[in-house]
Amino acid sequence: MTLLGRWVWRVGTAGVGVVVGTALVKSGLHADDDAVSVASSVGMPVAHAQSTTTTPPARLPTLPYGFPDMGQLKHRPYHVISYNQALRIPNWVCETFDEETVKAGTTDRKHCPFKTDNSIHPYFQSVDSDYRGSGYDRGHLAAAANHRTSQEHMQSTFFFSNIAPQVGQGFNRDAWNQLEGYVRRLTKAYTHVHVCSGPLFLPTRTPDGRMMVSYEVIGKNRVAVPTHFFKVVVGKTPKGQLEIQSFIMPNKPIAAGQPLINFLVPLEDVERAAGVLFFEGIPNKYAYTYRKNGKLGGRFDKRDKT
Amino acid sequence: MTLLGRWVWRVGTAGVGVVVGTALVKSGLHADDDAVSVASSVGMPVAHAQSTTTTPPARLPTLPYGFPDMGQLKHRPYHVISYNQALRIPNWVCETFDEETVKAGTTDRKHCPFKTDNSIHPYFQSVDSDYRGSGYDRGHLAAAANHRTSQEHMQSTFFFSNIAPQVGQGFNRDAWNQLEGYVRRLTKAYTHVHVCSGPLFLPTRTPDGRMMVSYEVIGKNRVAVPTHFFKVVVGKTPKGQLEIQSFIMPNKPIAAGQPLINFLVPLEDVERAAGVLFFEGIPNKYAYTYRKNGKLGGRFDKRDKT
Repeated sequence: MTLLGRWVWRVGTAGVGVVVGTALVKSGLHADDDAVSVASSVGMPVAHAQSTTTTPPARLPTLPYGFPDMGQLKHRPYHVISYNQALRIPNWVCETFDEETVKAGTTDRKHCPFKTDNSIHPYFQSVDSDYRGSGYDRGHLAAAANHRTSQEHMQSTFFFSNIAPQVGQGFNRDAWNQLEGYVRRLTKAYTHVHVCSGPLFLPTRTPDGRMMVSYEVIGKNRVAVPTHFFKVVVGKTPKGQLEIQSFIMPNKPIAAGQPLINFLVPLEDVERAAGVLFFEGIPNKYAYTYRKNGKLGGRFDKRDKT
Repeated sequence: MTLLGRWVWRVGTAGVGVVVGTALVKSGLHADDDAVSVASSVGMPVAHAQSTTTTPPARLPTLPYGFPDMGQLKHRPYHVISYNQALRIPNWVCETFDEETVKAGTTDRKHCPFKTDNSIHPYFQSVDSDYRGSGYDRGHLAAAANHRTSQEHMQSTFFFSNIAPQVGQGFNRDAWNQLEGYVRRLTKAYTHVHVCSGPLFLPTRTPDGRMMVSYEVIGKNRVAVPTHFFKVVVGKTPKGQLEIQSFIMPNKPIAAGQPLINFLVPLEDVERAAGVLFFEGIPNKYAYTYRKNGKLGGRFDKRDKT
């Protein structure tokens, strides 16, 4: 066996206005042709580099033969993906959208085929055949319907790097879809909506009192099936205030008609389980909206149509 | 709930000769006082920054309120740790050592207490009480006995960021310990030895044909108990050639007297399971040593004393 198909690191600069230490150049892999610039139609500067990754340090004395990088960042229009190479699904996907970007136009998901993400090393990709016959849906983390400014932007959510196995009936097509719709409607109450979504692997207690995490892996590439999914939602009010809500839903059929408030959790619960602090740049002075008198709180309530 | 205890990012430069985009400054947390410079006694330049992490990009338009960082790099004497905040154990720990650094001297592990790693956010720490009464050993990833140049260097392997739950009898105290001893003895055949060690979570097939990953989590902090551990070993010959071997061992009692060759696996197996490419900086022209005629191959064989 030889060391074929490995990454080649070349030190360089990348990005506009983004501090990035090294650029990743793939050897023997397709370039990520479909990763396009972050559009600036919501008034944000274009400031990303194609195919950048969480920057590994340059040669360290203890690591003279390369940095064992755990994953890659994918910069796509209006969403960023942290990909988990071991689980073959995202760690998280963070989106930014507003009333304009979610508006139904001429874009149509029927013209969006799912695509293998060839910017990922073949060892760590998930592909269509992993899902076929598995019984699970190819569930979007960044929802296609949030990204309707162009067919190309919508297409960018169909890379398998944005997909995780979801229970179809009762979850992806129902409760989770309802949550996605709720978050989209928040664009009517907030000038910008920021959402981070991702998988969780939560333990259950066994009869002998031990806490066990148990999850299926599907397909030749052993794609992990999360036990739960989360969404952390930030709304920016017209006055510039920020309100936060967090949800955790089990990846299983959920009885119809349940209000979303049943899945509302403290942000801390998501953060401890995911191993990530979300929106840590939000100053403490901003109100944290969790639950007020059994209602969603803030401007969130009036958007829950269930 | 407020957003207390969160990280504060400050853009800055850090490190000597290392390209690092941002430096991590902790707010309300203890500085990592015990992280000291990588010593250069094996002829390598000192070139690291204290408390740096996998560099999150500066503010991205899609992430205006901070980067949800998945983990942290810990730079310790002769070893580097990639910590998994969700699992509360390392993703991997990579060590460099030679005949000098493994030589028994006046250092003694009896004087090395286990320590909470306060450079980790409290949400994601593992602590002594998580292990107490769990039935699992506090297993080192970078072995204490590899780092004997000073009591301080040995002590640096006793942070819980370098620890994972291991079965004691038959594994940590036996088969795994035997593997560690083997790797240490390689310093007699190679001028430098580089080792990456870490946990794996491998699936098993259920009676109905599904592939399931199942693992325990222990303690209040839900520290993950790996199903397996790996080691990837690189030896540098006096002529500068590099030889690689990879091992996977199940985290369970292993019958005594098994030769290490029973746990030898292709590097690719470790990489696919861990989601990481190891030693990718090693040029393809160097021989990859896996198994030759039922022997360990290269200079490895004569070191297997079992």
